[in-house]
Amino acid sequence: MENFTYHAPTKILFGKGQIANLRGEIPVGARVLMTYGGGSIRRNGVYEQVKAALQGFTVFEFGGIEPNPAYETLEKAIDLARESRIDFLLAVGGGSVIDGTKFVAAALRYQGDPWTILADRSTQEALTDAVPLGCVLTLPATGSEMNAGAVISRRTTGDKLAFHSPYVIPRFSVLDPLTTFSLPARQVANGVVDAFVHVTEQYLTFPVGAKVQDRFAEGLLQTLVEIGPQALQEPPDYAARANLMWAATMALNGLIGVGVPGDWATHMIGHELTAKHGLDHGQTLAIVLPAMLTVRRAEKRAKLLQYAARVWGITEGSEDARIDAAIAATRTFFERMGLPTHLSAYGISRDAVPSLLAKLKEHGMTALGEHQAVTLETSRRVLDLAA
Amino acid sequence: MENFTYHAPTKILFGKGQIANLRGEIPVGARVLMTYGGGSIRRNGVYEQVKAALQGFTVFEFGGIEPNPAYETLEKAIDLARESRIDFLLAVGGGSVIDGTKFVAAALRYQGDPWTILADRSTQEALTDAVPLGCVLTLPATGSEMNAGAVISRRTTGDKLAFHSPYVIPRFSVLDPLTTFSLPARQVANGVVDAFVHVTEQYLTFPVGAKVQDRFAEGLLQTLVEIGPQALQEPPDYAARANLMWAATMALNGLIGVGVPGDWATHMIGHELTAKHGLDHGQTLAIVLPAMLTVRRAEKRAKLLQYAARVWGITEGSEDARIDAAIAATRTFFERMGLPTHLSAYGISRDAVPSLLAKLKEHGMTALGEHQAVTLETSRRVLDLAA
Repeated sequence: MENFTYHAPTKILFGKGQIANLRGEIPVGARVLMTYGGGSIRRNGVYEQVKAALQGFTVFEFGGIEPNPAYETLEKAIDLARESRIDFLLAVGGGSVIDGTKFVAAALRYQGDPWTILADRSTQEALTDAVPLGCVLTLPATGSEMNAGAVISRRTTGDKLAFHSPYVIPRFSVLDPLTTFSLPARQVANGVVDAFVHVTEQYLTFPVGAKVQDRFAEGLLQTLVEIGPQALQEPPDYAARANLMWAATMALNGLIGVGVPGDWATHMIGHELTAKHGLDHGQTLAIVLPAMLTVRRAEKRAKLLQYAARVWGITEGSEDARIDAAIAATRTFFERMGLPTHLSAYGISRDAVPSLLAKLKEHGMTALGEHQAVTLETSRRVLDLAA
Repeated sequence: MENFTYHAPTKILFGKGQIANLRGEIPVGARVLMTYGGGSIRRNGVYEQVKAALQGFTVFEFGGIEPNPAYETLEKAIDLARESRIDFLLAVGGGSVIDGTKFVAAALRYQGDPWTILADRSTQEALTDAVPLGCVLTLPATGSEMNAGAVISRRTTGDKLAFHSPYVIPRFSVLDPLTTFSLPARQVANGVVDAFVHVTEQYLTFPVGAKVQDRFAEGLLQTLVEIGPQALQEPPDYAARANLMWAATMALNGLIGVGVPGDWATHMIGHELTAKHGLDHGQTLAIVLPAMLTVRRAEKRAKLLQYAARVWGITEGSEDARIDAAIAATRTFFERMGLPTHLSAYGISRDAVPSLLAKLKEHGMTALGEHQAVTLETSRRVLDLAA
């Protein structure tokens, strides 16, 4: 096991009715900017619950943060927060709203051009502060509610870039599974696949003898396989939604990634697919992961065999047959969740590959993965196989 | 799944050489009281490493905190800390040193008689502050390095009582597996069993559909079963000690206990055995748990079957046979770790049972377990079976 630092200080308020308790987590007298997305929270009652919980605070609102939150939108939120002298941010929504709010939190306490927080790693590392933030999560998927990361897109340039800072880790997050009951099936399915691939990015690399992390990762994958289809049922099942919500948070709060290598090549290629073609994040992962595992099966051999046995119960046949079966099971699971696993199913042809590779190159994504061995040529093979 | 709050804000510095990094985690200019136990840290080099890391701080020392830390000893530490105007506590040792230091931290900011923090639950709940503390863990076992709890013994009265407060959660804990290399085999074995039973107390109750918590609990148990014997090997194996250290922390940092019922009857009876007969904490758990599971097999039936299948791979035979086999496997594991599972092996006869029951009664331990159904009569049956 490699040395590591683990710090996940977000306080989680989990369960039915917990929105009412968020008021106890915000400093008395705070000037709060409540951020949200396209307005679904106005239709499902979450907006009213949050407003009721915020009675007594000075509350401003910024709605309209879109999926794959746009830098251009967030600039307006930063302006509003500055003008309103905001000292606490409350993100109400899914990963996009939370990610966007994290960026606002950091930008408000940064003196230079906010874009450099995304474009320049040394700027990220030099951040020393952010406006404190809390979350009311309404879409289990990204894990942003309990981690230090955010991904922001710039529409005018087609960029989708990540940043990390310990200062934007949420102070608290409310996870009420009831808030997910009005989600469209597509978003629930995307969330299941997103959480699943967050786990594989930290698990399907090479063995380093980190037994607890491996078991936890396998437990999350088994849980997602078990509850994925149940989570799509209508009327919604509280138990399935609760397990999905907690699994998705645990998938990317740092816990299963400590002391082990990370891959993230699937995510990086997926980001370009979203930026260029507008696919949902979950869809891009469903497309890229099975092809990625196939192309890199040699370097991932030991962990793929462990994955086959422990997650899918595949223990019969030759090693290659077991790996084939595990990759096929992964693909079948994504398809069963309603996410096709080939570019063609989304109307994207093989001709699109060169421009995706060009964007990867532009973003310096030329040595991805746990061994930094995913070159542009490897990415080309992955995308060709996924076509 | 039940509603829950989860908050485990301790920053973990894990791995070889991490003691040197603790200086960055203590406020500049702090007056630090370094607490430790019987002096083993002077023999294994940890003392020197910590002192080196604390250069530049004003450091006081309090050694001699014994296993099952004594209230009488800690009173002296409180006096020293008051006189020395301490504003940070650094516990260097195992769970006893950390527990004792937590008590000192709370007592220093409490105006009344410190004993009431232990004896009176409403006093615990009324605590509003504690001196901040950090840890250098040298004995994986109790999980105290990442939680809010502590257990203190009063020698003059034979009491062993727990308290909990969010204010005594360590700010940071350094977990360097190398610090465990000089531990006697008995302490390593005790730690494995202690961590194992921490998990079963939160897992072997009744199903509430908390799939992630169940999988994580099972993953910790599987890990402990796998590495327990390896952790006893000499010369010590870094990988085994590292996995033990992380598993023991995860076993009692709140993670696997969120949203699920807790038992803790085994611990409560075990505490009386330690208080009355001086047995190691791990020994008491090894004695009580197999008997407890046998006596309460009806109410724990569903989880015992799940435990049999998922932790021990026992899937053949009748349900009763599988439960028998799982309890037998648990007992064999403890014995294999060098911890006998009957009172008689420690020279304690059945005649000791009545006075143990009297102490349970005195401490109000008359309705223990996940259904509060472990009466004194149940405890008597457990102790008789364990005789």
